[in-house]
Amino acid sequence: MNKVEPKTLSGFMELLPNEQVLFNQMQDKIRMVYEKFGFLPIDTPVIEASEVLLAKAGGETEKQLYSFSKGDSNLTLRFDLTVPLAKYVAEYYNQITFPFRRYQIGKVYRGERAQRGRFREFYQCDIDVIGDSDLNVINDAEIPAIIYETFKVLELENFTIHINNRKILNGLFIEANVQDKSADIMRTIDKIDKIGKEVVIAIFKDDYKMSQKSIETIIDFIEIDGTTDEKINKLEQLNIKNEVYIEGVKELKQVVKYIRLFNVPNEAFEIDLSIARGLDYYTGTVYETFLNDYKSVGSVCSGGRYNELAEYYTDKNLPGVGMSIGLTRLFFILNDIGLIKTDKKSISDVLVISMVEDLSKSIEVANILRSAKINTQIYFDNKKIKTKFKYADKLNIPYVIVIGEDEIKSGLLTIKDMIHGTQEQLPIEQIITKLS
Amino acid sequence: MNKVEPKTLSGFMELLPNEQVLFNQMQDKIRMVYEKFGFLPIDTPVIEASEVLLAKAGGETEKQLYSFSKGDSNLTLRFDLTVPLAKYVAEYYNQITFPFRRYQIGKVYRGERAQRGRFREFYQCDIDVIGDSDLNVINDAEIPAIIYETFKVLELENFTIHINNRKILNGLFIEANVQDKSADIMRTIDKIDKIGKEVVIAIFKDDYKMSQKSIETIIDFIEIDGTTDEKINKLEQLNIKNEVYIEGVKELKQVVKYIRLFNVPNEAFEIDLSIARGLDYYTGTVYETFLNDYKSVGSVCSGGRYNELAEYYTDKNLPGVGMSIGLTRLFFILNDIGLIKTDKKSISDVLVISMVEDLSKSIEVANILRSAKINTQIYFDNKKIKTKFKYADKLNIPYVIVIGEDEIKSGLLTIKDMIHGTQEQLPIEQIITKLS
Repeated sequence: MNKVEPKTLSGFMELLPNEQVLFNQMQDKIRMVYEKFGFLPIDTPVIEASEVLLAKAGGETEKQLYSFSKGDSNLTLRFDLTVPLAKYVAEYYNQITFPFRRYQIGKVYRGERAQRGRFREFYQCDIDVIGDSDLNVINDAEIPAIIYETFKVLELENFTIHINNRKILNGLFIEANVQDKSADIMRTIDKIDKIGKEVVIAIFKDDYKMSQKSIETIIDFIEIDGTTDEKINKLEQLNIKNEVYIEGVKELKQVVKYIRLFNVPNEAFEIDLSIARGLDYYTGTVYETFLNDYKSVGSVCSGGRYNELAEYYTDKNLPGVGMSIGLTRLFFILNDIGLIKTDKKSISDVLVISMVEDLSKSIEVANILRSAKINTQIYFDNKKIKTKFKYADKLNIPYVIVIGEDEIKSGLLTIKDMIHGTQEQLPIEQIITKLS
Repeated sequence: MNKVEPKTLSGFMELLPNEQVLFNQMQDKIRMVYEKFGFLPIDTPVIEASEVLLAKAGGETEKQLYSFSKGDSNLTLRFDLTVPLAKYVAEYYNQITFPFRRYQIGKVYRGERAQRGRFREFYQCDIDVIGDSDLNVINDAEIPAIIYETFKVLELENFTIHINNRKILNGLFIEANVQDKSADIMRTIDKIDKIGKEVVIAIFKDDYKMSQKSIETIIDFIEIDGTTDEKINKLEQLNIKNEVYIEGVKELKQVVKYIRLFNVPNEAFEIDLSIARGLDYYTGTVYETFLNDYKSVGSVCSGGRYNELAEYYTDKNLPGVGMSIGLTRLFFILNDIGLIKTDKKSISDVLVISMVEDLSKSIEVANILRSAKINTQIYFDNKKIKTKFKYADKLNIPYVIVIGEDEIKSGLLTIKDMIHGTQEQLPIEQIITKLS
């Protein structure tokens, strides 16, 4: 028979079981934290009608879409979990209780150019709180608290949540009368560490034709530094009269106050006036999260506040705030930099190995262990004892119970600790205690 | 702005959060049982190269495929989890430890004609054990034990696992010299309850031109009834000399012996000589599982033994045995017949409601409860107290903690039991004990 090469598409992560166990464990932990904060699960389809999914999309995203037709339907695979959420909230508006706190963990699809660390299918783990007409700013402070808790539970110690408020930037640009150049200005500011302040000023003056006063306003702003409280003080003292700016600073101050009440330590977050997170979606608080030792990989958890979740589907005013963890990419990064240990994880707590042909006793022991919620596997195949132990070793199963003539007679079971190489003979009750 | 109607595609299940909580709970329970039996997780992509996924497919399946091209790749959404498993085992053969016990829970896609209770996107929850060259028949007995345990954990009390062995049917048809008519004969036998034995015999004789002896052999076989042990005795006494038949009966007898050792009670399984599960894939033991009170919905969990998992990809001989639960359909059926109660589930254990504007105390209490692993939500928005209680009620949150001036002064918190309508004042430590 002609064989087809069994090949997984490039850009699609597929893990070996020992890695998958860890991936799933991370996913479970994220879900556990989201539920601890009272978020409800939803699970929207991977496929949606193209007109629904693309009501808003455009530009770069459109090129990356997996779109196709089936019968007379034009279909598209979801490229994020936010647009499906907008559809969901508009579709079931009357059945939803607001504020609607939902989480969704699922795969999304983007046909990006294939390159190392970029995935075409990847998991997003999203939370959002959607209000009906209004939504208290304390929600903006709870999101960083959830990011903090999640990253702690994932055992990522050294990270910083960067926080800004889009209103501050918008107000600043209005005050400096450079709204129309805001994207260019943000991009230039982003490069200040590389090119230096003088070059930035030159670009502002020569390329963007900005007035001396505008340049001063912007430069005074980007030179703000210090502790979180110092930054807030300086923002307040900049003598900017624009109302949007003033509202942004007030919101940021409130968010910082409440973040602290949520017990997020000062070293885990900082005000970062340079983050904007795209220009057309977020309207208030924005977040990015960086691994301090690996800042070059970029933000690993981002989000923010938006005014209108579902304006393409409904007239209802649905403000929201949320964040997303790109789990596939995060797993790849952590694995790449060696922060994930894939060699120590096992699904089974114990492997039962028989020295005799009749497996009755092995099955009886496994039944009892499983009743006690101990993950138990029996080695069924008639192989050499060495092969059976090697199997436990390869799968990192931490304990092996050996059942031979002696064990069947005495009722005591031999249990071998595969990590320390020790073994002892115990009655089943003590084995349960040991493994529980 | 022109609005797009926010509409989910027909044939795609999308649940409200209170239903989704239950769906996820079922999925968690299934996963927990699979892991208890030592199965390892894998997670293959939803999209595969068409030539890989369709190496084997054909006929009815092909019409239902979601296939499309992207760039110069022909892609197809997976229609089951078995073909991806075959690809996976062939692709990572050298990195896999055999026998390979894997589970996968994921969405699959079939563009079936839309009708009530039929889904185009649905979850399958699969387990398979794959051997390298050989695989002990005890594995065939462990699968029904896992089905039994899973259904018990799902609190489905009244179900029966039907078991047969394809070798018995194949051997029977060879013995009766009617191999070429086996599909027709099976279909006719299927109707015997409706049309009666005499009509079946007439069809055998007149339509299929079967000999008197062949007809007798088949009729003697299908008339076998009684208890499990009586059926095995009768199968042995049928005086069929065909070796495949004899091997099939021997395997079935072994499987029954071991199923009992796995503590599956006699009333939970039966030998059903009429099930075949398609004609070209399974080669030995086959299973179907029926809800006794709702047999008309068909099998809700099926599987069996196959000789060659991955023959389209590799020369390696990879026998396996497994089963699959179609969770989306099972959930739909259980919901439809009222076996699922969607009105009593909550993600949050408690809602914290403040009577004062300053939420500091509410946040402090929530922090403490969450540290104690209690799912806790705070009501942030400044609404009437009645609205806040209504929110807890709508989300079925079982307890509400009320924080007002008195509570802040005394340190005692008012906790209201939303189900029984009672309330008491307790220190936080006692509330933790109560909610844990």
